[in-house]
Amino acid sequence: MTKSLSELASILGAEIKNAPNPQDIQISAVKPIGANEKDFLSFVSAKAYVGAAKTSKAAALICNSEVAADLTQPLLVVPHVELALARALNEFYPPAKPDGRISPHAVVDPSAKIGKNTSIGHFVTVGANSVIGENCIIEDGVKISHNVQIGDGARIGMNCVFSHGVRIGRNFIVFGNSTFGGDGFGFVFANGGHQKIPQVGGVVIGDDVEVGSNCTVDRGALSDTVLGDGCKLDNMVHVAHNCIVGKHVIIAGQSGLAGSVVLGDNVLIGGACAISDHVTILPETIVAGGTALRNSPKEKGVYVGWDWGFTFPEFQRMRSNMKKLVDFNKFAKRLKDAESKLGIDSGE
Amino acid sequence: MTKSLSELASILGAEIKNAPNPQDIQISAVKPIGANEKDFLSFVSAKAYVGAAKTSKAAALICNSEVAADLTQPLLVVPHVELALARALNEFYPPAKPDGRISPHAVVDPSAKIGKNTSIGHFVTVGANSVIGENCIIEDGVKISHNVQIGDGARIGMNCVFSHGVRIGRNFIVFGNSTFGGDGFGFVFANGGHQKIPQVGGVVIGDDVEVGSNCTVDRGALSDTVLGDGCKLDNMVHVAHNCIVGKHVIIAGQSGLAGSVVLGDNVLIGGACAISDHVTILPETIVAGGTALRNSPKEKGVYVGWDWGFTFPEFQRMRSNMKKLVDFNKFAKRLKDAESKLGIDSGE
Amino acid sequence: MTKSLSELASILGAEIKNAPNPQDIQISAVKPIGANEKDFLSFVSAKAYVGAAKTSKAAALICNSEVAADLTQPLLVVPHVELALARALNEFYPPAKPDGRISPHAVVDPSAKIGKNTSIGHFVTVGANSVIGENCIIEDGVKISHNVQIGDGARIGMNCVFSHGVRIGRNFIVFGNSTFGGDGFGFVFANGGHQKIPQVGGVVIGDDVEVGSNCTVDRGALSDTVLGDGCKLDNMVHVAHNCIVGKHVIIAGQSGLAGSVVLGDNVLIGGACAISDHVTILPETIVAGGTALRNSPKEKGVYVGWDWGFTFPEFQRMRSNMKKLVDFNKFAKRLKDAESKLGIDSGE
Repeated sequence: MTKSLSELASILGAEIKNAPNPQDIQISAVKPIGANEKDFLSFVSAKAYVGAAKTSKAAALICNSEVAADLTQPLLVVPHVELALARALNEFYPPAKPDGRISPHAVVDPSAKIGKNTSIGHFVTVGANSVIGENCIIEDGVKISHNVQIGDGARIGMNCVFSHGVRIGRNFIVFGNSTFGGDGFGFVFANGGHQKIPQVGGVVIGDDVEVGSNCTVDRGALSDTVLGDGCKLDNMVHVAHNCIVGKHVIIAGQSGLAGSVVLGDNVLIGGACAISDHVTILPETIVAGGTALRNSPKEKGVYVGWDWGFTFPEFQRMRSNMKKLVDFNKFAKRLKDAESKLGIDSGE
Repeated sequence: MTKSLSELASILGAEIKNAPNPQDIQISAVKPIGANEKDFLSFVSAKAYVGAAKTSKAAALICNSEVAADLTQPLLVVPHVELALARALNEFYPPAKPDGRISPHAVVDPSAKIGKNTSIGHFVTVGANSVIGENCIIEDGVKISHNVQIGDGARIGMNCVFSHGVRIGRNFIVFGNSTFGGDGFGFVFANGGHQKIPQVGGVVIGDDVEVGSNCTVDRGALSDTVLGDGCKLDNMVHVAHNCIVGKHVIIAGQSGLAGSVVLGDNVLIGGACAISDHVTILPETIVAGGTALRNSPKEKGVYVGWDWGFTFPEFQRMRSNMKKLVDFNKFAKRLKDAESKLGIDSGE
Repeated sequence: MTKSLSELASILGAEIKNAPNPQDIQISAVKPIGANEKDFLSFVSAKAYVGAAKTSKAAALICNSEVAADLTQPLLVVPHVELALARALNEFYPPAKPDGRISPHAVVDPSAKIGKNTSIGHFVTVGANSVIGENCIIEDGVKISHNVQIGDGARIGMNCVFSHGVRIGRNFIVFGNSTFGGDGFGFVFANGGHQKIPQVGGVVIGDDVEVGSNCTVDRGALSDTVLGDGCKLDNMVHVAHNCIVGKHVIIAGQSGLAGSVVLGDNVLIGGACAISDHVTILPETIVAGGTALRNSPKEKGVYVGWDWGFTFPEFQRMRSNMKKLVDFNKFAKRLKDAESKLGIDSGE
């Protein structure tokens, strides 16, 4: 596929700069700024990359007006560079489209309903009374149990698993091998062993949610586990039973929410975080990657650190002190010497 | 399904209180104490919830005799609240039952043995000489290689994978996308690369074990990886080669055991823990969530903390000191000033 | 299978010691040194195990010449014990061999190419224009999308998933439920929600790579995610978009690389590590298990610790100080007392 710079400017709502004949500039790909190729479009997301832009082989660059002032090659000037990039990528690399084909190697229960134009791959199962919306792509090997609901426009990655009763809104995206609706982890010790507490709640996922590969979202114990509209989960994220995740929450890779965690809208959880059970996190809060958060922060902010949940300024100070603490024994010795000179017996 | 309070009392072995006509109270569901519904049963697990209980819309509550003294609505009084709750849940939401149906879309090797009344889902494979017990549910997409043994009463979640030779006891439960019997991680550097050490041990799992979604249990190098009777593993738990896990061990979500870890009976590992290779943990020990444990604790107890493996009292003191350490540079400055006044030259 | 000690010596290139009639010693298995069995071969990897060796029931032991000097039983003396062990294991427990059988229950697109002697299991799919090499074993339930390339000699574990365009070299090994080519995690906030940035890069994996169970390797955003020749990944390892991993890199269980991480050749990442986005790690560097590394270390070395990325000597000192810091409040009090005696008012 090839598009002229004029066409692209029109698609992106961009202003053309440094290109007197934009209809003559043909673009056939979107590539990183340093790519050793030709006829490609790239982008400059910040002033810091102006140097790289100057030597780029890109036929044209997407940038904002501030960056544009420093550049002399063909430009598509837009107010929001990443958003324009996303649109350009959709143009050159359109996502797969459903074609309404149901594989003869799928097993769809007669009571299940499959919406118009939805594609069902090979070795997919759809159980009794499950309802899948229109224009979905259910890739090969997906297993959908009974009474599951999946809204219009879903794209379900290969070998994902949906247990009974999971309910999902529109435009859901998930990649391979993720599992929805496994039992929550609930036991009571009695009679010499851990007795299972049946997990009879559901999983309810809003609209426009994206989930990565190999994630798990457990069903609630009595009530539902909930992911709000617009949430985005990276790979290997674990959401335990009864979590209530607000809207537009981001959770990066390998982070986990223990049971009954509540995340407000627009919370951002970095990668490799562990949020303890029953912790509540206020809207807009950021938890930096690698943080184990055991207590509910009382205010919005940025939290980081093993367990202690430092605020970000505290964390910055801690960082600068940590290397001193490595040699704390020297400070201890010096304190003892000072005490000794003062005639203090610290008893140490 | 509906049951009268009298019937439930009989099933749970409970004493009825505050309900002169228990046969007239009809229960149709079990819900959280704050549910805005009717005709439901709920529970009060601790004194702290007495306030919530007083305003609950529940038609009846399960509680113990101590809590019962504070409440005036219909009650089912039992010695062990959670255990009674588990029984009530099993009554209202009985688990799926096997029906002995083997999907025509499954491939079962002629040499495999499938026990009486066991259900085999669509797109399941069972390899040569594998033996599956009675009354099992093998859900859609499960892959069982050759020479695998699975005991009676198993419930295997969708798309789980069992490599050759894995042996599992009775009443096994596992949720979707878990993997048993992958090779342990063993290499030796030679001839310019990491050479594979073949992993020829097995995986042996006892009775009454439950494993969550997306877990992995690797086969041993020469001998077996072992999970004892009654172990319960949450989601995304990783058990490496040659681990020996005792009975009734709990491992919460996203925790991992490196190679040759030994856990005594009744050990409890919180979520997001990393236990280093060859660590041995004594029976009854608790490792709190988020802990990386590099050394074998010499005594039973509660351990917590990044690497250092604090005992719990140490950890509590550390927590109270951590915020001071953030500003350790101020202490260092004060020490220097004191030294200066004393005429000490610390050389700093 | 049984082999005489003479045959084994010849296969391993070993010198026989303490066995005048090696053709009369029959070996039928390889077992741990303490096994309570007979006719087995074992090994002594270090002097520390000489005691165990002396009481071992092994019919013969693999060891090096230094260890051999202390032992009196039949020995196979070699320069590299683990390497010889690996060879012996391959002899007694040869890996499964492909047989060229394509299951009638697989769906292979007519445009796909399957190499000579490659086995394709039940319920496998291979999409349009995908190319699989010779002598591969594609186990049951594997899903391979379109335009995927997998080199000769691969062994793909059950239910693994390969999205479109993933390219893999020769002798690839992967265990169950791993996912290759899911979208990278890329969004831009605009118009009240997180807008997806299409992920259009690929995944490129070199020769002789081994990946564990339930791993994820995401496709790049614009360019490729790369794993170099000879890399070995343990279970539940996550490699995010645009990571560039060098040759012979080891990544242990449950570790993750955030986006655009660069690992030099021969880097070793322990288990449960989290490497932040855009971090670059120099060749030969070791990151010890449980480390969250936020910054690129400026030199080779061993790094360890939560966030701070201690060098190993710093870490050792920190460990010895950590228990003192638990009671830092006592030091603070002592400092204040000393100041008080000096007439200093610290204002604390």
